[in-house]
Amino acid sequence: MMRRTLTHETWGDHAALLARSQADPRGSVGPVSTQVIDVATPRDPLLLQYGGVLKHVAVAFEIYGELNADGDNAILVCHALTGSAHAAGVHSRGELPGWWDPLIGPGKALDTNRYAVICSNVLGGCYGTTGPTSLNPDTGKPYRLTFPRFTIRDMVEVQRRLIDHLGVSTLKAVIGGSMGGMQVLEWAVRCPDRLRSIVPIAIGARHSAWAIGLNEVARRAITSDPAWWQGEYPLAEQPEVGLGLARAIAMLSYRSMTSLEAKFGRERVSASRDLLSASFEIESYLSYQGVKLVRRFDANTYLYLTRAMDDYDLAEGRGKLSAVLRGVMVPALVMGIHSDVLYPEHEQKQLLELLPKARYAAINSPHGHDAFLIEFPQVAVQVRNFLESVV
Amino acid sequence: MMRRTLTHETWGDHAALLARSQADPRGSVGPVSTQVIDVATPRDPLLLQYGGVLKHVAVAFEIYGELNADGDNAILVCHALTGSAHAAGVHSRGELPGWWDPLIGPGKALDTNRYAVICSNVLGGCYGTTGPTSLNPDTGKPYRLTFPRFTIRDMVEVQRRLIDHLGVSTLKAVIGGSMGGMQVLEWAVRCPDRLRSIVPIAIGARHSAWAIGLNEVARRAITSDPAWWQGEYPLAEQPEVGLGLARAIAMLSYRSMTSLEAKFGRERVSASRDLLSASFEIESYLSYQGVKLVRRFDANTYLYLTRAMDDYDLAEGRGKLSAVLRGVMVPALVMGIHSDVLYPEHEQKQLLELLPKARYAAINSPHGHDAFLIEFPQVAVQVRNFLESVV
Repeated sequence: MMRRTLTHETWGDHAALLARSQADPRGSVGPVSTQVIDVATPRDPLLLQYGGVLKHVAVAFEIYGELNADGDNAILVCHALTGSAHAAGVHSRGELPGWWDPLIGPGKALDTNRYAVICSNVLGGCYGTTGPTSLNPDTGKPYRLTFPRFTIRDMVEVQRRLIDHLGVSTLKAVIGGSMGGMQVLEWAVRCPDRLRSIVPIAIGARHSAWAIGLNEVARRAITSDPAWWQGEYPLAEQPEVGLGLARAIAMLSYRSMTSLEAKFGRERVSASRDLLSASFEIESYLSYQGVKLVRRFDANTYLYLTRAMDDYDLAEGRGKLSAVLRGVMVPALVMGIHSDVLYPEHEQKQLLELLPKARYAAINSPHGHDAFLIEFPQVAVQVRNFLESVV
Repeated sequence: MMRRTLTHETWGDHAALLARSQADPRGSVGPVSTQVIDVATPRDPLLLQYGGVLKHVAVAFEIYGELNADGDNAILVCHALTGSAHAAGVHSRGELPGWWDPLIGPGKALDTNRYAVICSNVLGGCYGTTGPTSLNPDTGKPYRLTFPRFTIRDMVEVQRRLIDHLGVSTLKAVIGGSMGGMQVLEWAVRCPDRLRSIVPIAIGARHSAWAIGLNEVARRAITSDPAWWQGEYPLAEQPEVGLGLARAIAMLSYRSMTSLEAKFGRERVSASRDLLSASFEIESYLSYQGVKLVRRFDANTYLYLTRAMDDYDLAEGRGKLSAVLRGVMVPALVMGIHSDVLYPEHEQKQLLELLPKARYAAINSPHGHDAFLIEFPQVAVQVRNFLESVV
């Protein structure tokens, strides 16, 4: 099993340091560590949706709070594209806390005095769960592009094996935004007897053409970089130009025009009129976001995970989407963000219309898609109230 | 003077072949040719806004209809980022007509029986006007990155020299969308005594942080391509990966999520699960758009023109934007597109609020920014009615 040593300094999907100041003043879960268990073995391999087979799958996860004797007080948190299992607490002194720390802890919305909150790195991720950077036990070398193609459904199957291992009978809730929200909805369709509620945030029922297009140009940025070496780059030498550009492209869809205008407007970093130097703050910001991701994420993994997102269609092979959604009988809190251009509110409205027991909560924010990683107080109050209603 | 032989098969800025079927059934201007004149010479050089000097500037232009004796029946059409002077008619048999052909011709909105319609390739363009692909007379080699930085203001100065040369006293109107709209507004501020009305379409008063960011990632796509050779690529060997990727990124902002969803949705081009092959129609479409642009456009020129767009701020060095716009005393027809995410309607609403003699016309379209190159009947009726009101 391979463990990466990347720090979580930049905590999860989208840098939003300002969020720190909005953090819930209640308690922290304190020092935490990422644990790893095996959920697939040669005798119990993971059979993937598109036909691949993994004979070894390790899952990296963290757990905050105590599972009760009935195993029914757990909440599963699903992370977004570049996130990790490190959702709360700190690994070491001085480190920034996990990516959803303001929501998870004693007395917080996901109250670790009451719930056992579980977060695992997705299948194919690069934060400890088996993926393209892992060693292929058959060859002793990293899989890289020989890793089989996997899907959101496969990620959920791995999570199901994890909660089985942990002794969870039914999950009180499955919650997550963006790619995390895809997993949430898949959970509801795939394992309805294993959960009692869902909270999909800033996501729809299938990936749109526009969202696919954005992922595709990001992938092309990576694969066009000669330093990608057809996927064979040394893992310590990421194709930084391509991966950085991919991140910069994505950032423009994670934020809104309004928030970028308010934050950067036409502020210049330099009076230079050099054609090739950054003139404006926004250019410098995008570049910085790229550099930050390159330090903590793997380029091949980015290719695989964005493919999994593009393939995401809750109804694939299951009949009509409306029937699939109408069959989800657990209570759902559907959350959307008015300024989200990547997964706009009309996608959540579709979920609301078709899910039999759904209620809607808007995150009122100018920040676009990333608001679920920024507007913690709003998310907290909605999630807290919803969880109170879940029996 | 350098002339490029690129065809206009792909007519102007944004491929929208469906637009052909909506074309005004009235007359075509028929066969046309691009003319070229010199507007700067060593004795009358062009002094650029940011300090550069051009001792030779040739301008490529087309004119449809006859200028009257008073020289006051001309309409100047300004093109967008990758457009050219070829706005109407055909250069040769079998060729697709100019990029705004449905609007320009006898009996059409820009009625060549009444008006002399002029369109010129912008300063720094690669369709016949002096730019980075032109030969530097001092060296005998193409300028490439030694071409001086230029701005929207410089483009307008070149156009002003052109209409002087042609004997135009005052322009009946200056009209254009996107980067063309930037020129339109600059005309109104810079040369109020030379025009009687303006029609800025799908543009605002200054480039937003988001729009700058999109241009920047497109530029990085080009400059990251090793085949760009720091700008020194042979002109017949464009950095096709980078320029194609730049175009693909831009296309996602030229269309709307709604229109891409309606056109492509989740249609697959292939059942293959190969990680690196296009799976979805939208991927194939974006790739195709890139290939088309590479055939007809120059990568260095793309860098320069997007910089000019990013530097665009009508108020730069002129005091407050509100005062600048309030000083524009000519009638204005401001057109916007509800589904435009690149230059959204709030930017046009600002123009409407501040321009003293403005009226607003919405282009009702799901197609996003590109709608001004697609929804010809709507543009035609608004422009025709507006021009009737201009004295």
